[in-house]
Amino acid sequence: MPRAIITLTTDFGLRDPYVAEMKAAILSICPDATVVDISHEIEKLNTRMGAYVLASASPYFPKGTIHVAVIDPGVGTKRRPILIQTKHSLFVGPDNGVLVLAVKNQKIEHVYEITNRKLMLPKVSGTFHGRDVFAPAAAHLANGATPAGFGPEISAIVVPDFAKVIRRKNVLEGEVIHVNGFGNVITNFGRKELELMNVKDAVTVKLKNASLKLKLCKAYAEAEPHKPLAIIGSHDFLEVTVNRGNAAKYFKIKIGDRITLYRS
Amino acid sequence: MPRAIITLTTDFGLRDPYVAEMKAAILSICPDATVVDISHEIEKLNTRMGAYVLASASPYFPKGTIHVAVIDPGVGTKRRPILIQTKHSLFVGPDNGVLVLAVKNQKIEHVYEITNRKLMLPKVSGTFHGRDVFAPAAAHLANGATPAGFGPEISAIVVPDFAKVIRRKNVLEGEVIHVNGFGNVITNFGRKELELMNVKDAVTVKLKNASLKLKLCKAYAEAEPHKPLAIIGSHDFLEVTVNRGNAAKYFKIKIGDRITLYRS
Amino acid sequence: MPRAIITLTTDFGLRDPYVAEMKAAILSICPDATVVDISHEIEKLNTRMGAYVLASASPYFPKGTIHVAVIDPGVGTKRRPILIQTKHSLFVGPDNGVLVLAVKNQKIEHVYEITNRKLMLPKVSGTFHGRDVFAPAAAHLANGATPAGFGPEISAIVVPDFAKVIRRKNVLEGEVIHVNGFGNVITNFGRKELELMNVKDAVTVKLKNASLKLKLCKAYAEAEPHKPLAIIGSHDFLEVTVNRGNAAKYFKIKIGDRITLYRS
Repeated sequence: MPRAIITLTTDFGLRDPYVAEMKAAILSICPDATVVDISHEIEKLNTRMGAYVLASASPYFPKGTIHVAVIDPGVGTKRRPILIQTKHSLFVGPDNGVLVLAVKNQKIEHVYEITNRKLMLPKVSGTFHGRDVFAPAAAHLANGATPAGFGPEISAIVVPDFAKVIRRKNVLEGEVIHVNGFGNVITNFGRKELELMNVKDAVTVKLKNASLKLKLCKAYAEAEPHKPLAIIGSHDFLEVTVNRGNAAKYFKIKIGDRITLYRS
Repeated sequence: MPRAIITLTTDFGLRDPYVAEMKAAILSICPDATVVDISHEIEKLNTRMGAYVLASASPYFPKGTIHVAVIDPGVGTKRRPILIQTKHSLFVGPDNGVLVLAVKNQKIEHVYEITNRKLMLPKVSGTFHGRDVFAPAAAHLANGATPAGFGPEISAIVVPDFAKVIRRKNVLEGEVIHVNGFGNVITNFGRKELELMNVKDAVTVKLKNASLKLKLCKAYAEAEPHKPLAIIGSHDFLEVTVNRGNAAKYFKIKIGDRITLYRS
Repeated sequence: MPRAIITLTTDFGLRDPYVAEMKAAILSICPDATVVDISHEIEKLNTRMGAYVLASASPYFPKGTIHVAVIDPGVGTKRRPILIQTKHSLFVGPDNGVLVLAVKNQKIEHVYEITNRKLMLPKVSGTFHGRDVFAPAAAHLANGATPAGFGPEISAIVVPDFAKVIRRKNVLEGEVIHVNGFGNVITNFGRKELELMNVKDAVTVKLKNASLKLKLCKAYAEAEPHKPLAIIGSHDFLEVTVNRGNAAKYFKIKIGDRITLYRS
């Protein structure tokens, strides 16, 4: 049997001991797990960026991979710890939307609230459920625990604004969910929404500081150097980019900005 | 037999090839080891921050884990490379205090100076004992080498100022050993020292730029938003924090600052 | 049989999902591989820094290790994806010089262009060959695929300027290939070139903003504190450093600067 794979996505950074404590909790329960970092450099408390990064990387992992995401501004409050079982994978994290983009394109089979104290660390702190609740849950799943044993099945998860796109006739309203290391601006407009709008060769996007008519390209190099373009990225979200340039800097865009798209 | 776990804590950063060279040295000797990064973003040459981060993460790892810490301003001088065997784990690093907070709460069984050249890389540089001495030592331990084979047993290790708290009647004098990514100020006052002082609901702390009377809370949210509080963190050190704020910025505190605590 | 080791060197950073996607591609093909990060903090598109970091770390890995380097400004253009088999290791990456310093000191046995689509991901994007071409190639090698099966053997690889040192009588002309976290300035002058020049105790180096006569030391501490020195680093390249100081800051040097060396 191949070793179970557990991925981690957090906003803990790499300076502090927190990520290592999660790995320690995992290896104490399932010493043979393969733990893979997706990112620990999610902006602090930015669930939309965490949701995007997890949704981008998770489809490439083998079937059965267990994904843990801990961007958790509500730790210690009543937000629920949840476990989502899809056709392809298992997802563990707080019920605040951080898992929502990743599970959106996979068939959700069950959602459970994690309440079974026997599958947590013996002492659960009020401040660090990553180590005390979510990492142990993933490790027990890696050991073969059945999802239904974690707690009661629930019927709906929280869907925050960043996971909703408003569509009216020829207009889409959404937001910037990520700015990557190259300055590419990633929106929450998915391929399907653009297809429903019947978008073809060009779009007009209205940003906070600019209104741009953009060619919808298949490769960055289809635009002149230093000229903006629109492209559907490898993760099926519409991106606004500048060929050989930094779109976020050019147009002063940051994560969370509203964006409106018109068919043009 | 489960695979041996080796953890790494250094100030090498992640840009340069140094951490990978340590892992290469380990895997060349013990190909089956599980290597876990605790942190490589310790501030350069800051042994107290390294000591704190190692002390925080190490208790969560399984019994028998081998911890390597290399914050080593004295590399190439006469400071001793040491191996500490506790009831719970093995610790490898320079004898400059970087291991001292981690072993403080565990029963020390033996301390050895590492002198056996057969358990180092064939060529030992004057500048990089992490790769040439400490990583190989950990890998040989992972392969089952006995601690006593590394060199002569020694009776005392270096205990630097940051590991000492001065207690007089109702006053504790110590220092800031870490500022975490959220701006929480972590002191070297342990739970035991506070208990010996009979501290209960509140403390007064005198910092470089402020004197603060603080409620001793059990959760950050016990204080009003943006108000300071004291709390004993999950690693048993007293922290000065600001609910939903950055205490280090508010009070201009940095690692190494002196701090005095009065019972109030 | 020990588990195969695959190393990764990229300029993707650790914020974005890209590195995790490469690991996902690897583990999907070879679930038992040990994946080791060399660095993902190579300056964006800086092939010379990538080449240096890979050349530094790779010799310490066990025989048979598979090294993947993706600093790839020409992705999607006609630059070739290649596989280099040396006496010691396998190297996978774009044919733009990023592999050249690492293979320089090892006996090259074969170079292949990677053209076999069966050894790539089913869908190859125009923008991310790290995930779609290079990671899968490494994973198939880890599974035992023969190098000759990846594509046609080729006779020469690209050798960029940073891998060339011009030697005239008593002068070497080269460049700065790396500035490490301590501010040490690493040149592309190798030990052999200095030996051919018959350099012994001292050298004169001419940099953009300074001309320095430097003692050729064996340890940093041979120079007075805060004084500059030259030293052949543990990776056999000449470094200009300042004892307990930051040479790159003192002399305003950055990666890519030209440097001339005279025997003095």
